[in-house]
Amino acid sequence: MKEQMTPLEEIRHSSAHVLATAVLRLFPDAQLDIGPPTDTGFYYDFDLEHTFTAEDLEAIEAEMKKVIKENQKFIRMEVPREEAIQMIKEFGQETYKLGRLEDIPEGEAISFYKNGEFLDLCAGTHVNYTKKIKAFKLLSIAGAYHRGESSNKQLQRIYGTAFPSKDELAEHLEMLEEAKKRDHRRIGKEMQLFAFDSDQVGPGLPLWMPRGTVLVEELEKLAKETEFGAGYDRVRTPHLAKESLYITSGHLPYYEESMFPAMEFEEETGGVKVRYFLKAMNCPHHHKIYAALPRSYRDLPLRFAEYGTCYRYEQSGELMGLMRVRSMQMNDAHIYCTAEQFEAEFNAVNEMYLKYFELFGFKKYLMRFSTHDPDKLGKKFVDNPELWEKTENMVRDVLKSSGINFVEVPNEAAFYGPKIDVQVWSAIGREFTIATNQVDFAVPPRFNLEYTTPENTKATPLCIHRAPLGTHERFIGFLIEHFGGDFPTWLAPEQVRVLPISDKIADYAKSVLADLNAAGIRATVDLQAEKLGAKIRKAEIEKVPNVLIVGTKEAEEGAVSVRSRFEGDRGTMSADAFKDDLLETIRTRKLQVKE
Amino acid sequence: MKEQMTPLEEIRHSSAHVLATAVLRLFPDAQLDIGPPTDTGFYYDFDLEHTFTAEDLEAIEAEMKKVIKENQKFIRMEVPREEAIQMIKEFGQETYKLGRLEDIPEGEAISFYKNGEFLDLCAGTHVNYTKKIKAFKLLSIAGAYHRGESSNKQLQRIYGTAFPSKDELAEHLEMLEEAKKRDHRRIGKEMQLFAFDSDQVGPGLPLWMPRGTVLVEELEKLAKETEFGAGYDRVRTPHLAKESLYITSGHLPYYEESMFPAMEFEEETGGVKVRYFLKAMNCPHHHKIYAALPRSYRDLPLRFAEYGTCYRYEQSGELMGLMRVRSMQMNDAHIYCTAEQFEAEFNAVNEMYLKYFELFGFKKYLMRFSTHDPDKLGKKFVDNPELWEKTENMVRDVLKSSGINFVEVPNEAAFYGPKIDVQVWSAIGREFTIATNQVDFAVPPRFNLEYTTPENTKATPLCIHRAPLGTHERFIGFLIEHFGGDFPTWLAPEQVRVLPISDKIADYAKSVLADLNAAGIRATVDLQAEKLGAKIRKAEIEKVPNVLIVGTKEAEEGAVSVRSRFEGDRGTMSADAFKDDLLETIRTRKLQVKE
Repeated sequence: MKEQMTPLEEIRHSSAHVLATAVLRLFPDAQLDIGPPTDTGFYYDFDLEHTFTAEDLEAIEAEMKKVIKENQKFIRMEVPREEAIQMIKEFGQETYKLGRLEDIPEGEAISFYKNGEFLDLCAGTHVNYTKKIKAFKLLSIAGAYHRGESSNKQLQRIYGTAFPSKDELAEHLEMLEEAKKRDHRRIGKEMQLFAFDSDQVGPGLPLWMPRGTVLVEELEKLAKETEFGAGYDRVRTPHLAKESLYITSGHLPYYEESMFPAMEFEEETGGVKVRYFLKAMNCPHHHKIYAALPRSYRDLPLRFAEYGTCYRYEQSGELMGLMRVRSMQMNDAHIYCTAEQFEAEFNAVNEMYLKYFELFGFKKYLMRFSTHDPDKLGKKFVDNPELWEKTENMVRDVLKSSGINFVEVPNEAAFYGPKIDVQVWSAIGREFTIATNQVDFAVPPRFNLEYTTPENTKATPLCIHRAPLGTHERFIGFLIEHFGGDFPTWLAPEQVRVLPISDKIADYAKSVLADLNAAGIRATVDLQAEKLGAKIRKAEIEKVPNVLIVGTKEAEEGAVSVRSRFEGDRGTMSADAFKDDLLETIRTRKLQVKE
Repeated sequence: MKEQMTPLEEIRHSSAHVLATAVLRLFPDAQLDIGPPTDTGFYYDFDLEHTFTAEDLEAIEAEMKKVIKENQKFIRMEVPREEAIQMIKEFGQETYKLGRLEDIPEGEAISFYKNGEFLDLCAGTHVNYTKKIKAFKLLSIAGAYHRGESSNKQLQRIYGTAFPSKDELAEHLEMLEEAKKRDHRRIGKEMQLFAFDSDQVGPGLPLWMPRGTVLVEELEKLAKETEFGAGYDRVRTPHLAKESLYITSGHLPYYEESMFPAMEFEEETGGVKVRYFLKAMNCPHHHKIYAALPRSYRDLPLRFAEYGTCYRYEQSGELMGLMRVRSMQMNDAHIYCTAEQFEAEFNAVNEMYLKYFELFGFKKYLMRFSTHDPDKLGKKFVDNPELWEKTENMVRDVLKSSGINFVEVPNEAAFYGPKIDVQVWSAIGREFTIATNQVDFAVPPRFNLEYTTPENTKATPLCIHRAPLGTHERFIGFLIEHFGGDFPTWLAPEQVRVLPISDKIADYAKSVLADLNAAGIRATVDLQAEKLGAKIRKAEIEKVPNVLIVGTKEAEEGAVSVRSRFEGDRGTMSADAFKDDLLETIRTRKLQVKE
């Protein structure tokens, strides 16, 4: 089936073919695997004895420019399977392309695209001529397993990007450059926020160092306060449960591959083997708390919130800093409500999202509303067409009436109900999916969750799964890039540093510090035997948002000279005035952005 | 070896023999196992076809009184092993006693104690005559595995207690009666603090319901504030680690039985089997954070605090409410310091304990200082006599000079250093061990922990393990008994309940509520269609510390009528004055005790 790509996708997809054309000219032995467009560019995977170097990348890029200049035409050809096999063999690409051909089901069209001397098994679609590629750039080389499976051979993947105009490409490259500077792994190391110890603790299991723990706990405090104000109850549940819980929830056996393997032992009473699993989600435990007491319509809505740590077994090749981890602490909550309460509850959840976006200065966001596909009921989606329609309508109505920025995407719902993925853009314009909301009408009945109605009958509540701050790990990774490590004062690991200009001022500096600490402010003093200039530079490198310089005059007057990372030199003020002002900045969680 | 028991132990030990004497008179088929004194009384384990009933207990107690009245003499006999076997057989107690005889090493004295017709293999010691037992009471029957091992036969254990006087016995029984009323499992259920789901979640894994979570999080908040003021840094670490970490720490293989079984899988790179274990302690992870950066003497002391959840595999028969669980969240911290800093650090830890004791109104406490036994170096204790002496002297000196109530107990130190168990007595006089401090000079070198000295050489820090609030689970279980569920306002799950006297006052009641909630106070309003008297009783049963009654007069004046659970009727005051006063009570964590 030929699916039309967007114009941008066509440019990038065609760039991938041009890349392969150039590589075959320079390295005729290369075996090609696949070369699709991506959200931010394109890549092509090659199997080749020679290992690509940075110099090769330059040569390939030069060759690609030639191919583009030749203005080759992209020609689509649909052929029978036998002929396709023949064509692949004649073009000398049987290693991977024959396997890819086998993926195409009987009865579906088999197509090739040809440009110049190059030929590729390809569903399409493409631009008409190579000259339509106005601006491209090769970016990097990486290893990638054939079909993403670690048991297969590792190929060489060349990444590139392409845009309709040179300006857009330049802007993107600038963003990538800035993203590199703001790489959360680099800043995390420089600012001593977190560490990994793959050898003894394990890959993908971050150790939060003191400064990173401040970030975690400030987010947790924010969530607690926000949720208290919104009528949530907090709960705490263990990090594991018996197999039986996950059979009831449906995670087993379907989700087992993404879970840590079982802990298996014989309970001493009875000698039966019992298997325990680390939780990959908090919902089954929360359902158990719902079920622990009889519930009445008067108790609803019930909103159970927990920063619960979940464990998922990601392939080690896919782990990436805080963005892809194996232990993740979710800003989770489950809202149990009646159908009548749904609109208000769902609206309140969305409003909480918007409030957070404002607090962190996220200017661009999008909610992707994923719905079911009626053709896949009973397979990909719970087979209950009436409830699908009802809940999807409820969600759609709320989104529309609240004026939230959203798009609807069919066929991407969760198994048990419609879902909303929340995408935000960082300050440098990079897109991240940070959170997911789900409406769940299928699992509560599996746990026999119910409430007594006013008519004294039993009914099943709906359950909204929501996690506006996503996971600590991913959200902090995102914030590091967003703020470039320059966290607003309320969030900053070290909020104030006091710098005495000489030893004689040390006592006064310490008294200023003690006063700040007593008010709960994270402040330190730098008493090292260094020059003031060096101390100031050190505080700057360590991104301390408020630096207080104190000399004889300040000591006499009970004053401090304030340098703010966000506002520059704020002059001299009384130590108390500074403290009161800072406490207000912290209390209101003032958004501060470094220009 | 004959070890002299204390007079109280002798009374209880002799009571156990009298119990067995009476049982054999009434149930001649009974096979006896053992019958030692305990901290609070005594027990004896019997193997008998017939299951003991409450009526049996009464009859046995009556028979015991007869035995005491007969004023039998306790006679000690030391005999050779062959003769001992003969005596046991003749007395018809070969089922367990022969095995117990085998436990006595060759060369040690084998002794029997005889009173009247009764004979028991027994090291002693005992009172002279049964009439010395002035006051005793049988308390309960329970199942107990022979030698505590679940693979062995379950025996019937009869518990009793005995005292030197009838008054002391009466006082103890009253305390037991009060303890039953204050049983944390009962109150926990009534107040909806926590629940267990052994079937699907697992035994010993508490689910903290919303009201219990308040207790957990208020304790956590207290610890965070206290530790921030004391210069601690907070860290966060995952709940599991590779086997390799626990081999370095020494937990594996020695501690493996107390750990959850391994999660074993092949990491996809390399195909090597890797075993992960849930952490049973936080220290190895904290050591990894210490080791993550180069450390200088200027950085010390470093104090890493974490409310880390640990998992230990307790036998299911030993699980008991919150007191013995499998998941425990520890108020943990590890202090890394130089030998010179030790005294100040250790003193500060003890001061933190005393501060907590005062806050919670613990009037009686004892620190048990456990030291090593020089004869067991290299076996039970790390083989480093100099460091043992040095650290034990350091600890002893601090304890003595600070005037803290402590006793010294030889041969009970931890493997890697001296330890202090902290015992506290609840308001009803029951004793609990709530926390442990340890001084560790042996493990830091195993992790190659070091710091640069002023002389630019490398040195190993000492490590103090401390957890003043023990685990959430045990500490809250203790607090429930201590306060009888009447938590002081700062800790109470529901701090205020507003009761409007009629529907007409509902709006005013809600506005009072909104005002309290906005100030972060945990308040609710009771709008049910019930009489005021019934609502007041309900609030009393649910132990809400502050009840506000609002009628027409209060609504007109912006006032509230206050009933305090601790202070009784406080009369009418402005809603704002009540709120400000309450906020102060909460902020200062005022100790409030119900008479």
